[in-house]
Amino acid sequence: MNNPVVTIPKGTRDFSPEEMTKRNYIFDTIKSVFKQFGYLQIETPAMETLDVLLGKYGEEGDKLLFRVLNSGDFMSKVNDKKNISSEHIANLICEKGLRYDLTVPFARYVVQHKNDIIFPFRRFQIQPVWRADKPQKGRYREFYQCDADIIGSNSIINEFELLQMTDLIFAKLGINISIHINNRKILSGITYLLNKPELLTMITTIIDKTDKIGHAKVIDELLAKGIDKQSINTIEQIIYLKGSNEEKLTALKNIFKNCDEALKGIEEVEELFNYIKNIGLSSSVSFDLSLARGLNYYTGIIIEVKAKDVSIGSISGGGRYDNLTGIFGLSGISGVGISYGADRIVDVMKELSLFPRQTQHSIQVMFVNFGKKEELYCLKQANKLRNMGINCEIYPENVKIKKQMAYANNRKIPYVVLIGENEMAAKDGKFTVKEMNSGKEIKSTLNELYLKILQLPE
Amino acid sequence: MNNPVVTIPKGTRDFSPEEMTKRNYIFDTIKSVFKQFGYLQIETPAMETLDVLLGKYGEEGDKLLFRVLNSGDFMSKVNDKKNISSEHIANLICEKGLRYDLTVPFARYVVQHKNDIIFPFRRFQIQPVWRADKPQKGRYREFYQCDADIIGSNSIINEFELLQMTDLIFAKLGINISIHINNRKILSGITYLLNKPELLTMITTIIDKTDKIGHAKVIDELLAKGIDKQSINTIEQIIYLKGSNEEKLTALKNIFKNCDEALKGIEEVEELFNYIKNIGLSSSVSFDLSLARGLNYYTGIIIEVKAKDVSIGSISGGGRYDNLTGIFGLSGISGVGISYGADRIVDVMKELSLFPRQTQHSIQVMFVNFGKKEELYCLKQANKLRNMGINCEIYPENVKIKKQMAYANNRKIPYVVLIGENEMAAKDGKFTVKEMNSGKEIKSTLNELYLKILQLPE
Repeated sequence: MNNPVVTIPKGTRDFSPEEMTKRNYIFDTIKSVFKQFGYLQIETPAMETLDVLLGKYGEEGDKLLFRVLNSGDFMSKVNDKKNISSEHIANLICEKGLRYDLTVPFARYVVQHKNDIIFPFRRFQIQPVWRADKPQKGRYREFYQCDADIIGSNSIINEFELLQMTDLIFAKLGINISIHINNRKILSGITYLLNKPELLTMITTIIDKTDKIGHAKVIDELLAKGIDKQSINTIEQIIYLKGSNEEKLTALKNIFKNCDEALKGIEEVEELFNYIKNIGLSSSVSFDLSLARGLNYYTGIIIEVKAKDVSIGSISGGGRYDNLTGIFGLSGISGVGISYGADRIVDVMKELSLFPRQTQHSIQVMFVNFGKKEELYCLKQANKLRNMGINCEIYPENVKIKKQMAYANNRKIPYVVLIGENEMAAKDGKFTVKEMNSGKEIKSTLNELYLKILQLPE
Repeated sequence: MNNPVVTIPKGTRDFSPEEMTKRNYIFDTIKSVFKQFGYLQIETPAMETLDVLLGKYGEEGDKLLFRVLNSGDFMSKVNDKKNISSEHIANLICEKGLRYDLTVPFARYVVQHKNDIIFPFRRFQIQPVWRADKPQKGRYREFYQCDADIIGSNSIINEFELLQMTDLIFAKLGINISIHINNRKILSGITYLLNKPELLTMITTIIDKTDKIGHAKVIDELLAKGIDKQSINTIEQIIYLKGSNEEKLTALKNIFKNCDEALKGIEEVEELFNYIKNIGLSSSVSFDLSLARGLNYYTGIIIEVKAKDVSIGSISGGGRYDNLTGIFGLSGISGVGISYGADRIVDVMKELSLFPRQTQHSIQVMFVNFGKKEELYCLKQANKLRNMGINCEIYPENVKIKKQMAYANNRKIPYVVLIGENEMAAKDGKFTVKEMNSGKEIKSTLNELYLKILQLPE
């Protein structure tokens, strides 16, 4: 038999034990903070109906959905088999797709279970999502999102709570961040000033690129789209406003004095800064009027988080949406949410060597295997250690001690216990214990070993 | 706009916070035991190539795979568009499928990463799998498997280790179990005695039904398949052998005295019972010669676990395979593994009311919201509590206190803190705290509240 090609679909990844330890460290940190603030975990299925998914992420998003083929004789639904295009047939032979993000499934969840949910509802969700994007460095076709949302409350205290959680999560992970905020109502106010409300999506999409392509090119793109010089001046004057957060607020109140929507947006930002001033955050928060965030469902304050010491784009982002569940027939429910990108956070932490040592080894003791009689003796000792809360293993084969030691060394196991005939006969209950770091061999009882393990650096 | 139909694909489920707490309790218990024994976590992608998946689960299994439609202009690969069947076109327009179990992806993982893996390799994996099975009570199209395998060692100590873990997991969960073991080599020996080795799969498939359809109907089915009376007598005599485990071993040694393979199987079972006798397990283990387990890749000891107090089929099962990675071109690696079915375990624990109280509430304190000034004061207190390790939240809106209390009650929050103007002005730092269980209101400082929370029943 020829060796078959053993590979995984492009853009997907296997996670080794070492990688999993790092990822779990991040997930556990995020989860612990979510729980501290009363957020409750839910999970939704990997597959959603295409009715739920299609049309929610724009035309480009629809193309990036992974569709799942119907089971059974799916072609029986296709009548004109001859002249059929991929686009047309896809809708006939697929009813389900893989979820593209966690927000749309959450909106679907809220509508479907509205009678069982206690509002205001703080939920978190940590699951993979799938996008048929062109794979490239740092961009995958399967990746995890960690989302927290509170739905059913308009108060700005919720936005502040998300900033508090963000502050705490990255402090725990050791990542220095800067938080950027803006308000969609102010961006909306700009198109009001220009008397071109229909251009909101186009203009925000271009403004959103400031971070990637720079101030000057944003202006070029606006010109290319046919925006007149005077309008561009107005846009520029607002989105690249200089000064402290407070100076910006003052200037904007004057600029938008006749636009209620923008004034409401300014007031919301002011309220958020008021919380920050009174309660405090360890990260800096800047009022960044060029922040737009791509997704169209945002209607209020928007948030973006960047790592200060690595240039990698945003590692977290979110905002308020007033009508997300409206697409599923339940209107009038406002929510605000934030999403943390696990993959980018892993990359930042690797680059800055922020993973703690404890994530290096997961097992503290290995018993060398000298044969059947010794094995039984070691099994009993291993049980005792496990009852004390120590993770340990017995090498499963009676092979050369050199091989067993090499295994322990590769696995980074700190203590190796050697129990042969002498140790089994010893009256003092002492074994030979090899400290793998120093290479030193000592004599130790089980309890002494236990105390040594407790002193291992965390 | 008409309300769109809001639903999820059949056979899939949403998990509410309450359900998640229960499921996490089970996953965390299983994980903690896996780690105690040195098992390392990996994850593989939800999608595998169809090359990896097809042909591994029998013809029936191939039909139950969820296939993912290729992106882009997938129909360009289809030449004869007119006379095409579903079966044929599926292979042209899909290259990927959702994983059907965790074992085949693990085998693929081992082969793909063989140079990075330290053998013997103990791995665990907890991820969902997908099967386009007809949904029915207790059977879903998306469900989680929790698998532990050790690969690269032939020793029976590994089988014993899996039994130890099983024993410990179910003891921690409070489920009384019986463990059933057998050996595929003995089943293979039966067909040797009958001089019909080619019938192994057919005969084991029928024997495997003993639990579902009973002894008599198994005989009927064997007859219906054309097995002669005398052969059936031989099969019956072996698989429904009576007596203690030791008596069975003695009888079998005699029956199979001329069959090396069966003798090897008997010896392996004997060795496993030897570990059990010497080290002990709290669950009973019976040598059940009618146990066959459906999957064909098993070649040695096979294991099945049943809940004693609920009739629900097996809740865990596994066995040894000598050539699983052979299908991907890497032969000579033996492994043994076990899989725990999270959904059935949840059902058993619900039926027996085994979930501990701690899985009922996740937040210990709610602060009532009396307005802006009080909110800021409460935010500071909430921060202090969180620093002490207490999960708490502030009701985000200044609405009627009755509504806020109803929320706390529904959420099963044990303590509600009321801080109004009087409390903020109080010199003794005491708040009003409502104990929601008793309805009693007390005066308490933050530290006194903290001590009270520590005394909450686990």
